[in-house]
Amino acid sequence: MKSIENLKFRQGLIPAIVQDEENGEVLMLAYMSKDSLAKTLKTGKTHFWSRSRKTIWLKGETSGHYQEVKEVYFDCDKDSLLIKVKQVKGACHKGYRSCFYRRLSRDGQSTKIVKKKVFRPEKVYKE
Amino acid sequence: MKSIENLKFRQGLIPAIVQDEENGEVLMLAYMSKDSLAKTLKTGKTHFWSRSRKTIWLKGETSGHYQEVKEVYFDCDKDSLLIKVKQVKGACHKGYRSCFYRRLSRDGQSTKIVKKKVFRPEKVYKE
Repeated sequence: MKSIENLKFRQGLIPAIVQDEENGEVLMLAYMSKDSLAKTLKTGKTHFWSRSRKTIWLKGETSGHYQEVKEVYFDCDKDSLLIKVKQVKGACHKGYRSCFYRRLSRDGQSTKIVKKKVFRPEKVYKE
Repeated sequence: MKSIENLKFRQGLIPAIVQDEENGEVLMLAYMSKDSLAKTLKTGKTHFWSRSRKTIWLKGETSGHYQEVKEVYFDCDKDSLLIKVKQVKGACHKGYRSCFYRRLSRDGQSTKIVKKKVFRPEKVYKE
């Protein structure tokens, strides 16, 4: 593969797993368009495609919780990305370091919050 | 959220990140239908939905490289899963431990294989 032109975008998007480069914690999963990936590489800060707002967004634009890109990997099928970052504060808009702060029970019938908040969303996201 | 019934499946599918529970390495990303997730929880082995073959598949069925489920997390939007597993041998059908064995250069114009193979696919996948 020579460049991002060879990645497989499905309906214009590719899923991007964001991982904390320091401790390996998976922080979030979001989608990138080719343009948002190009912007991510150019600026060194993650940019994603918002499927609801139909626009590119800079992660941290509102909160200041940017993700500094360290390394970008792609998978065997060229249809998923893994981005290792240095995360400012927390990745999740709910106040957690990782968006994966809830665990499912083994029978799939109950859930539990297993992480602690690292910031207060109501202070960060003001209307 | 009370159960897997409350997860958001898009066109019947939810992306599942598979992570090595021992060292935190991200192994692969694949998609689950509600049925394949239920089967995963019931059997303790990952089952995915193959978008090309349009069927549920048991990871490791051919290769023996099963993934034993340790913990299942879901994200703030309830539309992504993170599954921590004990991986037998390697997750990638190309012979690598992780499907993310190639790194993209910072300008997006070149790629590099940065992992070593842990098995020989031609020996594992016989026609």
